[in-house]
Amino acid sequence: MQNTFSREDLCDLARSLLTKGGLAPEKAEVVAELLIRTDEMGVTTHGISMVPYYLPELASGNMTSEGTHEVVRDTGATMVWDGNYLPGHWLMTQALDTCMDRARTYGMAGLAMRRSHHIGCLSTLTRIAAEQGLVCYIATSDPSGKWVAPYGGTEPTLTPNPWAVGYPGGEHPVLIDTCASITTVSKVREHINSGTRFEHPWMLDARGRPTTDPTVVNADPPGTLLPVGGIDHGHKGYAMALHVEMQTQALSGHGRADAPSRWGGNVFIQVMDPEAFGGADAFVEQVAAVNALCRENRPAEGLDRVRVPGDGAHARLASSRAEGVRLPDEVWRRVSACAREMDVALP
Amino acid sequence: MQNTFSREDLCDLARSLLTKGGLAPEKAEVVAELLIRTDEMGVTTHGISMVPYYLPELASGNMTSEGTHEVVRDTGATMVWDGNYLPGHWLMTQALDTCMDRARTYGMAGLAMRRSHHIGCLSTLTRIAAEQGLVCYIATSDPSGKWVAPYGGTEPTLTPNPWAVGYPGGEHPVLIDTCASITTVSKVREHINSGTRFEHPWMLDARGRPTTDPTVVNADPPGTLLPVGGIDHGHKGYAMALHVEMQTQALSGHGRADAPSRWGGNVFIQVMDPEAFGGADAFVEQVAAVNALCRENRPAEGLDRVRVPGDGAHARLASSRAEGVRLPDEVWRRVSACAREMDVALP
Repeated sequence: MQNTFSREDLCDLARSLLTKGGLAPEKAEVVAELLIRTDEMGVTTHGISMVPYYLPELASGNMTSEGTHEVVRDTGATMVWDGNYLPGHWLMTQALDTCMDRARTYGMAGLAMRRSHHIGCLSTLTRIAAEQGLVCYIATSDPSGKWVAPYGGTEPTLTPNPWAVGYPGGEHPVLIDTCASITTVSKVREHINSGTRFEHPWMLDARGRPTTDPTVVNADPPGTLLPVGGIDHGHKGYAMALHVEMQTQALSGHGRADAPSRWGGNVFIQVMDPEAFGGADAFVEQVAAVNALCRENRPAEGLDRVRVPGDGAHARLASSRAEGVRLPDEVWRRVSACAREMDVALP
Repeated sequence: MQNTFSREDLCDLARSLLTKGGLAPEKAEVVAELLIRTDEMGVTTHGISMVPYYLPELASGNMTSEGTHEVVRDTGATMVWDGNYLPGHWLMTQALDTCMDRARTYGMAGLAMRRSHHIGCLSTLTRIAAEQGLVCYIATSDPSGKWVAPYGGTEPTLTPNPWAVGYPGGEHPVLIDTCASITTVSKVREHINSGTRFEHPWMLDARGRPTTDPTVVNADPPGTLLPVGGIDHGHKGYAMALHVEMQTQALSGHGRADAPSRWGGNVFIQVMDPEAFGGADAFVEQVAAVNALCRENRPAEGLDRVRVPGDGAHARLASSRAEGVRLPDEVWRRVSACAREMDVALP
């Protein structure tokens, strides 16, 4: 089995599944398109493989299937939205369109959103703005999520707090996509499910001792995910985590102070227009210079070359567009089982 | 010798030294005030101890002693300034005042500055805005500086790229102040001068092997400082570094593409007004909730408690205001030697 598909077939499949699951058609269209773009970039953990997770959320009403967000505040360059737990891809498309418009007007714009549903792969989103010549920063947290301890502590308190930046880089955008903890909740779950350990001590047990054992998160009292920098210099990851909590929760006026009991995404989006700073050409010239210094860097022993974030995604996107979108066996097994269950035709 | 002084005496001393060194009096006043505030927060590496470094820079003309910056671009919410190598503390005071005004008007404002001289301790600067209820982000790089290799590479290419965020936090501001490399150039120099090694392998030799030896930076070919995350997950520090290079150089339209041969500071400053998002009260309520969860966190074995960035500075500031400003022997030795040489009276 090749598991290689045309983007149209996968879009159709995702859209049909989501529509049949109750999502309003115009929203299913947007979610499907962004999921498949994510698969095209090779991030198959966040592509069509998410549909089997979204369907029960739609069925239970945890993911709102129609309607729109509430504009809580709008000053022109700054905004607060309440996402009403609508599909994150759809909300983010609206938010990005708005922020890109505002950035073209004001030079920069920021939007803090409370109560979104899952927004998927951050690079898929930042890339939209970067392809249009803009700088786009996105950070997200879940104020009900508790996985990472503050540096020096032991109790799960913060989420991994991903953040991403996309910006024009000459041939293709730079796509930085990272987070404030060393590893992620899904990696922890993967290791628990497969009965394996981390290669490095990226977890902390409840007494604050580093460990490779992912199951510490299920112990009583539970262990935690280490912040970036680990035991050695984890105050740096802790700094990143607090920054993201502030941007996503304090600016949106909704967060841990409300002690929400259900999963939800808080998001901060910022778009800047290089034309409103030193100019688009100068911007790309400087980015290209730094990128060249990195790519031409003599690799460390055992490595073939140095990459700039976004290089891999660009290559995989080009190959997906030329040869079709490749899905891992495990993903296709789950997605096709889900389609059979929903009585939706497979490509 | 107690080395404890009144803030007025230290301000007078710094101002007299800088004025005698040729700096315009109104600028010397501002620089002196910010240096002493830095000492008051306990960051004595970046306080009055900088004066002996600034004086030769003034004498050589590397630090511009009078005049003002050039406004390259001003759209209201976004700006580019050319700092003309004026003292960074003075430039940053102007830049912060302007950004705070603009943030009150537009909700958020960003300023990219090229060619500043040394801007000192970032927390001293972000604290100014945070004390006024604003969120302030500052990042800085030196486009002539090459110390950190991109992750996977071996050649010195990037600066440590510090970034800081200050924001209101209830009792006192949160002051995050960190950088994209594990250690800093000054720590490397300190270890070289004292003939000591790092406790952990925070350096990389020219072949890309981790080492505790700081002298690799002087080898031929030279080694590098490891990005945050180290060999284990240094792609996260590399991401931070590229982010800061983009903000400070690409947005300001001046950077590595120009291959500047002299030391200089590029800066990106962003100020946001919580009132233009979810409101100032909601902002502080959310920050206070996260801070409480961190401070009340059960500490790891061997630690007494968990801190929030800014807690230490706040305590040291209070003690400096109550008992006077304490300087380490080494700092006072250098500063008093410098004063004697310049024939400036000591307190």
